[in-house]
Amino acid sequence: MSIQCPPGMRDFYPEDMRVQNWLFDHWRSVSRAFGFSEYEGPIFEFLELYELKSGAGIVSELFSFTDRGERRFAIRPEMTPTLARMVAARANALPRPIKWFSIPRMCRAEKPQRGRLREFFQWNVDTLGSEDPLADAEVVAVAVEFLRRVGLSEQDVAVRLNHRGLMKHALEALGVPVGQQGKAFELIDRSEKIGDDAFCQHWRQHFPDSDAERVADVLRRASLDECLRLAGAGGDDLAQPTRQFREMWERLRSFACEAYCVFDPRIVRGLAYYTGAVFEVHARRVQLRALLGGGRYDDLTGLLDGPRVPGVGFGMGDAPMLEALRELGKLPRLDEGIDAFVIDADAQRFDDVLGLVTRLRREGLVVDYSYKRQAIGKQLKQASARAARYAVIVGHEWPQAEQVALKDMTTGQQRVAAAAELAACMRR
Amino acid sequence: MSIQCPPGMRDFYPEDMRVQNWLFDHWRSVSRAFGFSEYEGPIFEFLELYELKSGAGIVSELFSFTDRGERRFAIRPEMTPTLARMVAARANALPRPIKWFSIPRMCRAEKPQRGRLREFFQWNVDTLGSEDPLADAEVVAVAVEFLRRVGLSEQDVAVRLNHRGLMKHALEALGVPVGQQGKAFELIDRSEKIGDDAFCQHWRQHFPDSDAERVADVLRRASLDECLRLAGAGGDDLAQPTRQFREMWERLRSFACEAYCVFDPRIVRGLAYYTGAVFEVHARRVQLRALLGGGRYDDLTGLLDGPRVPGVGFGMGDAPMLEALRELGKLPRLDEGIDAFVIDADAQRFDDVLGLVTRLRREGLVVDYSYKRQAIGKQLKQASARAARYAVIVGHEWPQAEQVALKDMTTGQQRVAAAAELAACMRR
Repeated sequence: MSIQCPPGMRDFYPEDMRVQNWLFDHWRSVSRAFGFSEYEGPIFEFLELYELKSGAGIVSELFSFTDRGERRFAIRPEMTPTLARMVAARANALPRPIKWFSIPRMCRAEKPQRGRLREFFQWNVDTLGSEDPLADAEVVAVAVEFLRRVGLSEQDVAVRLNHRGLMKHALEALGVPVGQQGKAFELIDRSEKIGDDAFCQHWRQHFPDSDAERVADVLRRASLDECLRLAGAGGDDLAQPTRQFREMWERLRSFACEAYCVFDPRIVRGLAYYTGAVFEVHARRVQLRALLGGGRYDDLTGLLDGPRVPGVGFGMGDAPMLEALRELGKLPRLDEGIDAFVIDADAQRFDDVLGLVTRLRREGLVVDYSYKRQAIGKQLKQASARAARYAVIVGHEWPQAEQVALKDMTTGQQRVAAAAELAACMRR
Repeated sequence: MSIQCPPGMRDFYPEDMRVQNWLFDHWRSVSRAFGFSEYEGPIFEFLELYELKSGAGIVSELFSFTDRGERRFAIRPEMTPTLARMVAARANALPRPIKWFSIPRMCRAEKPQRGRLREFFQWNVDTLGSEDPLADAEVVAVAVEFLRRVGLSEQDVAVRLNHRGLMKHALEALGVPVGQQGKAFELIDRSEKIGDDAFCQHWRQHFPDSDAERVADVLRRASLDECLRLAGAGGDDLAQPTRQFREMWERLRSFACEAYCVFDPRIVRGLAYYTGAVFEVHARRVQLRALLGGGRYDDLTGLLDGPRVPGVGFGMGDAPMLEALRELGKLPRLDEGIDAFVIDADAQRFDDVLGLVTRLRREGLVVDYSYKRQAIGKQLKQASARAARYAVIVGHEWPQAEQVALKDMTTGQQRVAAAAELAACMRR
């Protein structure tokens, strides 16, 4: 009987796993460099946790099930509810700011189709317990440092930033009543995807008192200053978002990542819980989904017990990022090279080969050998196929002096070496 | 509303995550040192995959669910079926031996109670496509090298080995017909747990023609030679298992891990698919569950399409191993230290602090700073709380010469250093 990998799920054969690990290693090392600590949660949570955050409508988008005790659970579709739960449980004990990251595996019950994954990994970076725009700028700087390290320059990608507080005021000035801005954000979120004509048509339906063409024009072309001017009409309470946003831009300059950043009024993030700065990363020249989305929220733990915890953070999925790196030719070739492949010049020496292999592995080197006893030439071919940096040949010099032939597989040079000095040689 | 972590699941706060990462890093580096490549699969599979391997009875032990297309899936309770599926799909393309490892997360629908986890991680190491006892010895050597690296000596733990082929013959000689050995293996598997009296009672019920006391005595005391003598009565086809087992022991010696290994006729592994050598790792002085279980199987992909693939491998769960390390006092103290904490001597210098922080992070160091502008003393306390190796104080020397005060937080020594040399200083 033949059984396949479930639709929308992925097998990671060693060559795929090397790419995942390369990505995860970058995610981890950048997060750590910025002083973030890793956390993790369970693969499934009580279903109520997601209903609480997103309403009962979320259930159809989740893989949910019950246990024998009739408790309802769902595989996590995002990390934020878990983060909220964990922080709420220890809100008073955790020193502020709470700088945490995670690389959770998560699932969504997407209809299986090309490019729609049901399972993916997502890098989550959050700073909690601070309202300082410094925190907003720092999480953006984490994202930018990752982009820089994987070779994506400001010509390749852009961080597009906006502020929901400013947009609220600007929209009011453009004729959208405060109570209907959720719908407006949703339409703006889709404006690039659906194009100007469709956008204006939808806009007119929902907001007959607002000039759709003018809105489209603002979204397409407005600078921060224009938006501020527009938003200025909204009232006095604009002072705080303006100060916040300008301070964040100054901090982006301090973190030397301003070159990646552009103001873009089309970035509003449909999600209801964002309240301040919002941002996305997009490839500049290729048309791809957003590579990252994030923003500031007033109260992470609002729906759970515990004190108010403001925060700012982002999520970056593995699949869109790897797709972008592939498209832009930035994915490195990742060979699973080994340090040494140990060869017997004579089947009688095989036990010595295993002894030497064991010694080198204990010294921390990555070492392999042939399971089959065969000619040196064939074993050298295997060494080559395994991308070994060195071949170590155990021959007749072994019994007297524990000496081997050490062959550099890159240069082809070969010399006699004592077993005791091999590890040091190879580390050089 | 307060929502908890689901029963039997775990939250990993940063201090827990450090322990997990410490364990996973060891699992990865040991596997790689031995030439094994990492793979992964999806978190859930078609339910049929598990039914095929274990029968329909397995369903109640799984978390299963259907998608909108009424397809049935289950969260993986073990990795072997996924491994079988992945190998079967490429059986002819993969070079032999296939040496693979994985650190999958998996779930079982255990009744929630103390010590019974519903979610755990399990290190899986398998060598496929070789029947050579060398492969059996090598996976045992991988396990032993891990034990050695985490500080567990042969006084702390033992690898208890046996061979199902030998046991079949020995049981026949002890009066258990060939067709009923599944039940016999199951009882032997539980013999230590239930004690001699209960074992003999059960044995008598199932095998009235077999001397229960004699069996119990053999299980408790037999050496390999005694078992071989017993098994010898079984017939001529004993030659192959005997040769295999003896050759494996010789290879364990070649891999220098013999000191950890003992023959133990009680180790039979209940699982039906093992056919050759079987082994478990147990703590010697503390009574804990097995820390590892594994063995040889004739045909991994037998139930799926594809050619016959023999193999040998083991699984080690994260929770029992961490429990053992804790019990034995071998779990190291893991601080999340940072390389440097950068301090402003004067709030006017804060922008310079952020610039220097950015520069050091780009050079690969782990660097943090205070979100609050406050006195040097308070910032130094924060540096200490973060277990920073160095405090870097940006003061009045900065504007002219880009010089800082560099304080070694271990020795307390402080000196003036140029910004350009900081990274090199700290790496030393």
